[in-house]
Amino acid sequence: MKQYLKMDEWSIIEESFDPATHEISESIFSIGNGFMGQRANFEEQYSGKSLQGSYMAGVYYPDKTRVGWWKNGYPEYFAKVLNSTNWIGINVLINGESLDLAKCEIKDFVRELNMKEGYLSRRFVAVMENGKEIQVESVRFVSMKRQEIGAIRYAVTPLNFSGTIRVVPYLDGDVQNKDSNYDEKFWLEVEKSAAQDISYLNLKTKKLDFHVTSVMSFDVYKNGEKQEFEASVSEREKFVSAEAAFEVEQGATLTLYKYVANVTSRNHGLGQLVEAGKKALLEAHAAGFDSLRQEQADVWAEKWKGSDIIIEGDVSAQQGIRFNIFQLNQTYTGEDDRLNIGPKGFTGEKYGGSTYWDTEAYCVPFYLSTADSGIARNLLIYRYKHLEKAKENAKKLGFTKGALYPMVTMNGEECHNEWEITFEEIHRNGAIAYAIYNYVNYTGDKSYLSQYGLEVLAEISRFWEERVNFSSTKGKYVMLGVTGPNEYENNVNNNWYTNRIASWTMEYTLEVLDYLKKNENARYLELIDKLKLSNEETAKWRNIIDNMYYPVDEERGVFLQQDGFLDKELVPVKDLAPENLPINQNWSWDRILRSCYIKQADVLQGLFFLSDRYDLETKKRNFDFYEPLTVHESSLSPCVHSIMACELGYQEKAYEMYLRTARLDLDNYNNDTEDGCHTTSMAGTWMAVIQGFAGLRVKNDELVLQPFIPSHWKAFSFNVMFRGATLKVNVGEESITVTNETDTPAAIRIYDRSYTVSAHGEIQAQRSSVTI
Amino acid sequence: MKQYLKMDEWSIIEESFDPATHEISESIFSIGNGFMGQRANFEEQYSGKSLQGSYMAGVYYPDKTRVGWWKNGYPEYFAKVLNSTNWIGINVLINGESLDLAKCEIKDFVRELNMKEGYLSRRFVAVMENGKEIQVESVRFVSMKRQEIGAIRYAVTPLNFSGTIRVVPYLDGDVQNKDSNYDEKFWLEVEKSAAQDISYLNLKTKKLDFHVTSVMSFDVYKNGEKQEFEASVSEREKFVSAEAAFEVEQGATLTLYKYVANVTSRNHGLGQLVEAGKKALLEAHAAGFDSLRQEQADVWAEKWKGSDIIIEGDVSAQQGIRFNIFQLNQTYTGEDDRLNIGPKGFTGEKYGGSTYWDTEAYCVPFYLSTADSGIARNLLIYRYKHLEKAKENAKKLGFTKGALYPMVTMNGEECHNEWEITFEEIHRNGAIAYAIYNYVNYTGDKSYLSQYGLEVLAEISRFWEERVNFSSTKGKYVMLGVTGPNEYENNVNNNWYTNRIASWTMEYTLEVLDYLKKNENARYLELIDKLKLSNEETAKWRNIIDNMYYPVDEERGVFLQQDGFLDKELVPVKDLAPENLPINQNWSWDRILRSCYIKQADVLQGLFFLSDRYDLETKKRNFDFYEPLTVHESSLSPCVHSIMACELGYQEKAYEMYLRTARLDLDNYNNDTEDGCHTTSMAGTWMAVIQGFAGLRVKNDELVLQPFIPSHWKAFSFNVMFRGATLKVNVGEESITVTNETDTPAAIRIYDRSYTVSAHGEIQAQRSSVTI
Repeated sequence: MKQYLKMDEWSIIEESFDPATHEISESIFSIGNGFMGQRANFEEQYSGKSLQGSYMAGVYYPDKTRVGWWKNGYPEYFAKVLNSTNWIGINVLINGESLDLAKCEIKDFVRELNMKEGYLSRRFVAVMENGKEIQVESVRFVSMKRQEIGAIRYAVTPLNFSGTIRVVPYLDGDVQNKDSNYDEKFWLEVEKSAAQDISYLNLKTKKLDFHVTSVMSFDVYKNGEKQEFEASVSEREKFVSAEAAFEVEQGATLTLYKYVANVTSRNHGLGQLVEAGKKALLEAHAAGFDSLRQEQADVWAEKWKGSDIIIEGDVSAQQGIRFNIFQLNQTYTGEDDRLNIGPKGFTGEKYGGSTYWDTEAYCVPFYLSTADSGIARNLLIYRYKHLEKAKENAKKLGFTKGALYPMVTMNGEECHNEWEITFEEIHRNGAIAYAIYNYVNYTGDKSYLSQYGLEVLAEISRFWEERVNFSSTKGKYVMLGVTGPNEYENNVNNNWYTNRIASWTMEYTLEVLDYLKKNENARYLELIDKLKLSNEETAKWRNIIDNMYYPVDEERGVFLQQDGFLDKELVPVKDLAPENLPINQNWSWDRILRSCYIKQADVLQGLFFLSDRYDLETKKRNFDFYEPLTVHESSLSPCVHSIMACELGYQEKAYEMYLRTARLDLDNYNNDTEDGCHTTSMAGTWMAVIQGFAGLRVKNDELVLQPFIPSHWKAFSFNVMFRGATLKVNVGEESITVTNETDTPAAIRIYDRSYTVSAHGEIQAQRSSVTI
Repeated sequence: MKQYLKMDEWSIIEESFDPATHEISESIFSIGNGFMGQRANFEEQYSGKSLQGSYMAGVYYPDKTRVGWWKNGYPEYFAKVLNSTNWIGINVLINGESLDLAKCEIKDFVRELNMKEGYLSRRFVAVMENGKEIQVESVRFVSMKRQEIGAIRYAVTPLNFSGTIRVVPYLDGDVQNKDSNYDEKFWLEVEKSAAQDISYLNLKTKKLDFHVTSVMSFDVYKNGEKQEFEASVSEREKFVSAEAAFEVEQGATLTLYKYVANVTSRNHGLGQLVEAGKKALLEAHAAGFDSLRQEQADVWAEKWKGSDIIIEGDVSAQQGIRFNIFQLNQTYTGEDDRLNIGPKGFTGEKYGGSTYWDTEAYCVPFYLSTADSGIARNLLIYRYKHLEKAKENAKKLGFTKGALYPMVTMNGEECHNEWEITFEEIHRNGAIAYAIYNYVNYTGDKSYLSQYGLEVLAEISRFWEERVNFSSTKGKYVMLGVTGPNEYENNVNNNWYTNRIASWTMEYTLEVLDYLKKNENARYLELIDKLKLSNEETAKWRNIIDNMYYPVDEERGVFLQQDGFLDKELVPVKDLAPENLPINQNWSWDRILRSCYIKQADVLQGLFFLSDRYDLETKKRNFDFYEPLTVHESSLSPCVHSIMACELGYQEKAYEMYLRTARLDLDNYNNDTEDGCHTTSMAGTWMAVIQGFAGLRVKNDELVLQPFIPSHWKAFSFNVMFRGATLKVNVGEESITVTNETDTPAAIRIYDRSYTVSAHGEIQAQRSSVTI
């Protein structure tokens, strides 16, 4: 892990160029607007190592599955985030020689991701092989306001010579996914046109017929003065460019403004793509770069108002948390309920798919607290829309009813193929049910249940009903052959978490049915009829709830992760020689499986989700048992432990866990940031601060806070939305202040005392130094 | 399953040509001599569907592993049986038009695999598109006496015309493995020469540098008269041919004799290959086709003398068992201790590798009883030679000592990559230890133990020692995370069979140590020193033996296949609706795993191996419990159940199980014979007859027989070798006759009575109708 980025509260800054870390920076400095995203590739040619990546949300490719040994039930395709047209490209020729940072000496290099205003900039002086020095300054962003628009300002100044500078903005669709299973290219050309004013490239995917059209225009200024010129255009397969040449005197600055609209068949008719692109482009071009950038700054100011966390006394933590919030907001804006949050966002293409249980377990809480409730609601509706596919999936695996949501998906179909995960890591179904509860509990929006929620809950309950079986030796319902959240165990029996979340799902479904029967009877009857839900079924659920088997260790008073867990040798992680860690890089898979080491929160995940139902002593016993055995080799793990440690008053442990992911990508902690950022786990870090350090919960329609300040911090404050109110919470050394910035009053409890924060009002509470 | 082959006691006969079953026939009619093998591809061009396959024993290719998701410990390569030079090819041109059975009408087609004398013949009349009719008769074999030689007689007779017939014998090395992971070709050309007298092709593999040189010569006769001719030769990359043209009158027969020597760098120096090939070829050519064929018949007569089984009253069973014995003898002759028995023999390339635990569990018994003991000994030495690689393999998986033999191998390195098998199906180690016991028990050759056996046993025991762990809750040693012989369970804890065979290995190792200490003390001390075997280690083994945990169901009095087995729903296979079967084609993998259905003998495999240690009542309870749950979806399964059913007096069940594999390939029972024959499971069928129906065992240095006759048979007889004697056993309705055909007397027990069969003597015993 190499720390090469400068500490700064609002920006990520790299102050010199090192090809060795370039791909890491390409991930970290990525920009996105929920509709498209772009790795921080250079605009000009770069012959060094680079992972070129432009991604359009929801545009994917079903790559033919590659496995060693086929098993029945595997999906035929693995849906991949699709690397699409490189729209940022600008070749620069200095007296005919191409500018390529792999072939220059580079001075005064600065790359900055300005998180406050949402743009990427870069500045450097390149000394070319012939001794010519040129200064380059570039700024680019993808517009949060105009989702199809990207804009680049690219300024070149010859420092020690006068000469001909050619700029060649282009669109290049001849790109490939790095992880293509069979080294195949996924795009076909539909049409193209290169012209001085507007060039475009219309491509479609080889399968599924997604069309993506990129349209570009550009202006050139010299020393601030708009230039007239005759461009020479060029076309080849899946490529268009326009070239303009200028004589530039030493010290003068040639500035290219490149505007691009990327439009897709997800939002426009196939025949309208070029027109739609041109229209969006012309509007943006007319507005001009500076005005687009101001819009961008305005939208981001609004985003920060909802979601910022301010940490006093720790710049590193401040930068880390803002980076996480920034990336989450770049990845998903919540307007399109067909989209979701890919594990790498728009920063890379690894893993494929866009939706994991990460969304429900980690991301929903972030959006619930930091954005309008409609955004989390859209994340829920996304799954509602996939219900039929989830039912098909269950059928495919041999179930006669019910729904099994996929482990990884783009369009509702499963696209993961490791039997122990695809077929067995079924607890994901529980997280999808839990997110409904979480949403309703947080927002109070019970209308969701009758509109969408119940159907999903009932079909998941049906799945659980059929997935358990009655063990005559145990006299209980058991669940055999599952993989829990801890993926360092495969094909186990009676994973406590899975049994628990299954039973909980059925319980909550029955509760919701009761609620609807009493409060929305007409809709209730309609739904019962639509679902063909019988009394036998609900009685069976009740019976399973009452007779579910949970493995426990009576002696230690802990829940057992699964049957037989205590047959393992229980050696705490701290007693392992360091060269064993991380075990996933040093141990063979069988050794990992039979060891006691836990990849990520498993029993503790259950105690976290169902926190209300367990007393502190139970949580403590389980935490004390499992935390020492947990290796946290998933980036999703430490946050749950951190939150639980906060609740148990283990403040040092909580902070230690928080640090494990706070700067995961900025410090390239797992040595894999070059593949992209760990976008979904960023929500976990946010949770560690808000649900952990601040102790935020929603109970009985109150927002509850139980804050403490990590000893390395002076104070911290954050914004949180709750039932129409936006609250600014400051946790100071002495007191906690909550300011309501809206017209809606909010019910809040701090430690044990309840308050109402009136519209635009403020309350203050003494800070307690003990949280339990 | 389509039965299209004619019933015959000594031959496999196909009486018409159907392209739909051609690939199945290509497998079934394969010929081999332990050194090389050849699918029953046509000599002449065939543009229809065909799997061309020529294989040289021990010549393999490390194909880069293909997996969906890489796991630590996976081998980088998968060693594949290598499809090598097509040496049988003879193009035939009739008045310039190529003979191609995919483009003719075919009449009077007969293909015959003559098992008695070891050759493949074919006869047909082809009506070409232009109406010309020609008759073809071909005979070919690979010589059992001259392992590098293959010979073909190919006779063409124009029936309704006179014209020019060109014959073009060739060698074609431009071949590919069907299952190449990345569609790569594995051969490079070294040198070649095409000439009228002798042509050759010298190829080498892209990796590992195996060289294979094929050398050919040919004669042409017309109506029995040798022809003089001028051949026109041709060369292209990896290809040589010679072409000869003849005017042939209607009704005259043109006969080509093609002789080929295939020599490899496994047996000759790189520089000597062409010379060695020429020498072998010239000798064979000088001997001539008829004489070579007589040699072949003589060797096979000898083979049949050792291994034949004669079944009276059931031609179908007779054909089936002879086919199995024939294929086993074709695949492995036992002279080269670097070779082993591939799962498909020389009949196909599926699965790769050449050595599975099939060898020890199923094939060793066959060779022990039907061939000189040196052959089984060589199979054991093969593993001894891989001991260092097995130690490396254990080290790679994180063990500090001991040996883990690979699941699949060519050269001792693992080349299988499914974690649940590669890393966890470790019971294979037990079968390798058991084979040593089996060999010594059968042959009485205790010298093997000090020469080779102990080292293997000790290193396997060391592996088990480290692989178990002490469970403090159970107060016993447990073995976590294994896959037993029943591959329809993965990653289970305390698989009874694995725990049992592990403990047994340690026990037998201690026994062998004791024996050597007492009887070969000097060598014992040498071995102790070489192995650095300490008293602590052997004490630890004793402790594990004494405290091994075995899951049991006290109530039913059965051993449990693994922890938690009784949590499953136990529904007998017969209660499954038929559309569920086979479950491996109809159920998703997770459903199979959590079901109670057993792919192949698991607990019963242990009771079979360690038969002496369990009473009949125990075996009966376990058989009665597990047999109804067993789906026998491995071809290796039914034989063990059959043998056990015999022992328990379940004669109908025994016969039913025997039938499951008796004609597996001949009737294409599993619908996959086109990929090759199930060579190793053929040994299982042999076992079902000899160890099952005849009840053959070796106990206390006596050969024990407890025969019964399946009700569908009248009588059966077989040859069996035992400690230097060759015994012919006839099981008749009334009595059992044993004839000793050698100079060595043999101790034998029939039912409960012991006999000595003197040299060239005969004994007779009453047949008992009850076996228990």
